[in-house]
Amino acid sequence: MTVLPDLITSAGNPLIKMLRALERKKTRSETGLFLVEGVRLIEQALAQGWEIDTLVVSTSGAERSFVADLMQRAASSGARLVQVPDRIAGSIAKKDNPQAVIAAIKQRELALDRLDAQHPGIWIGLYECRDPGNLGTILRTADCADVAGVVMIEQCCDPYSVEAVRASMGSLFDVRLALSDFETFNAWRKTAGLNMVAASVNGGTSHVGVDFEQPSVILMGNEQAGLPDAIEAECDTLCLIPMRGGADSLNLAQATAIMLYEGWRQRGFA
Amino acid sequence: MTVLPDLITSAGNPLIKMLRALERKKTRSETGLFLVEGVRLIEQALAQGWEIDTLVVSTSGAERSFVADLMQRAASSGARLVQVPDRIAGSIAKKDNPQAVIAAIKQRELALDRLDAQHPGIWIGLYECRDPGNLGTILRTADCADVAGVVMIEQCCDPYSVEAVRASMGSLFDVRLALSDFETFNAWRKTAGLNMVAASVNGGTSHVGVDFEQPSVILMGNEQAGLPDAIEAECDTLCLIPMRGGADSLNLAQATAIMLYEGWRQRGFA
Repeated sequence: MTVLPDLITSAGNPLIKMLRALERKKTRSETGLFLVEGVRLIEQALAQGWEIDTLVVSTSGAERSFVADLMQRAASSGARLVQVPDRIAGSIAKKDNPQAVIAAIKQRELALDRLDAQHPGIWIGLYECRDPGNLGTILRTADCADVAGVVMIEQCCDPYSVEAVRASMGSLFDVRLALSDFETFNAWRKTAGLNMVAASVNGGTSHVGVDFEQPSVILMGNEQAGLPDAIEAECDTLCLIPMRGGADSLNLAQATAIMLYEGWRQRGFA
Repeated sequence: MTVLPDLITSAGNPLIKMLRALERKKTRSETGLFLVEGVRLIEQALAQGWEIDTLVVSTSGAERSFVADLMQRAASSGARLVQVPDRIAGSIAKKDNPQAVIAAIKQRELALDRLDAQHPGIWIGLYECRDPGNLGTILRTADCADVAGVVMIEQCCDPYSVEAVRASMGSLFDVRLALSDFETFNAWRKTAGLNMVAASVNGGTSHVGVDFEQPSVILMGNEQAGLPDAIEAECDTLCLIPMRGGADSLNLAQATAIMLYEGWRQRGFA
């Protein structure tokens, strides 16, 4: 049976106001929802079992058959369907796309104890990662390299921000992700027997000299400040990514990719 | 002798209008100038011998001693000094920073034949790289890995855009950079004896199976479309960066970093 969308034509409607406010962290925290724009990303979320709370389509968007199809699948999984005039859809989507399709999706818990510490893959720890573009890019790379999971430590940017979701290209829906304070994380990784390897300017060996065949977590510091001394002191290995030119440092996502692919190379990409 | 800045207080002044228009590619092409914001980046440009055409400081910015020092050094190297009210400086800098310091710097030629094809480092070729954030990030990583140079091939984004300059974190001023059509580039690299290695979904070997100890150019395709078949057919080696998770592909800058650091690893980071 075809489910028909609710039609909303007023920009002042409370639901529309709430959806627009989801660009703010505060509203995302209060509602437990986040925005995902575009059919491809929404399909990925559905395929990975994420729950769509509300699916909003513009009048022009709803006319396309693959959008109609997505709407029915979202409705079967319990989503509310809403159709709005193109200009209202555009105001939620920020990008002024008349064919906009936007989902408000339910956030998942980020508790560390939900993750399987015995997963054989490499772990990534991000200490105070502040740039959502970096976070999303790292999630995408982590997904490609089939990591065990990504743990955001202390004050990180919000993985449910529009920018992080977009940069992740849907990998946010795939990657096992958690948020933790450092102390809890450190106890957890010790119990799991994970060797904690940090990239640091204080590193004594290059990253290719690290033994990544051991169960490992790669710990990466903040974009500006790196890792505090007290955190470095907790690491088993500090390594240095070789640099020789004029640049001071690598971008955080670049450094993470270089560490991760070296680790995975040592494991024969298994 | 201290050089005093010209004071401009009208937002309608032609120089101010031109500086503001430098955010557009058209104006950058017509004037041969580009904008660099912030003392640190401008210092780097000066240190690398780039010519500052005009240095603009806000009233608040000019009061700081290190800005006054930069102004004198810029003046000695031939720059025109201009002081403007904070709000006008902010309108050029886009970021509303009352202490803004902005330079209009002369672009350099991007001719391929200016580069030393016999340089011992690894080369990077970017085919139709369209995202200035990716381009800037790649320049930063290329700088860290001390590459021989970066060649932008066919229709690439502008390395002199504000976004590319910012993402490069000043590496734009360090890295040997050229722009070329593919045919000229391909002839040039053949003459130089460079093995052309492309990352491609059609690759037969993984990137760690490539012999990067040979003189090499790493060729990376467009963000959306990768490399056209006809370009891949010209390559000596097509390799695949291993991927196993749910993501379709790596971000271009991430893939470039992984290829480059593998190549540099094989060379013992020499």
